[in-house]
Amino acid sequence: MIEDTIYINKLYDCYGNLLTVIQREYFEDYYFQNLTCQEIGENKGISRNAVNKQIKDTVTKLEFFETQLKLCQKRDKIENVIENIEDQKIKEEIKRIIWE
Amino acid sequence: MIEDTIYINKLYDCYGNLLTVIQREYFEDYYFQNLTCQEIGENKGISRNAVNKQIKDTVTKLEFFETQLKLCQKRDKIENVIENIEDQKIKEEIKRIIWE
Repeated sequence: MIEDTIYINKLYDCYGNLLTVIQREYFEDYYFQNLTCQEIGENKGISRNAVNKQIKDTVTKLEFFETQLKLCQKRDKIENVIENIEDQKIKEEIKRIIWE
Repeated sequence: MIEDTIYINKLYDCYGNLLTVIQREYFEDYYFQNLTCQEIGENKGISRNAVNKQIKDTVTKLEFFETQLKLCQKRDKIENVIENIEDQKIKEEIKRIIWE
């Protein structure tokens, strides 16, 4: 479960910008603020089930982006490969680009 | 105009997987097969205007993805930086990852 959360946070870091404002709000309330669906629902004035569905749909969307673009996977691979670069300046420069 | 086409093709290469099958079909007919909107419309049995709108919307979508994720921009930057890596194996490995 925790591993799942770490993975989902990685996906959000890569693809969060492709989500709508509402999707980001619910996602962040749930995964970053650790609010329950019940609590988010009360704050927004919608049902617990509607919040739950919204968050599930958002995670599905993030997973779809990763299936299609593989950005997280590529970032991990590049991070591994650049460990072997001797020139620290080049290494840092590539790291900066993939994380900016 | 040609420069535009090269840029749009780059965006398609990065984000084409996020489009629907229909969007990809129209896009490829227009940009790769060089068919006119009129010809595509005749093949698909829809109006020239509908094809035109579909393709414009697709390009807008591709541009949105780039604004949000900057994948093309990052790929170009990494390609530039890795030119300075002496170890050819590492260089090729990174190239392979960003283009796979």
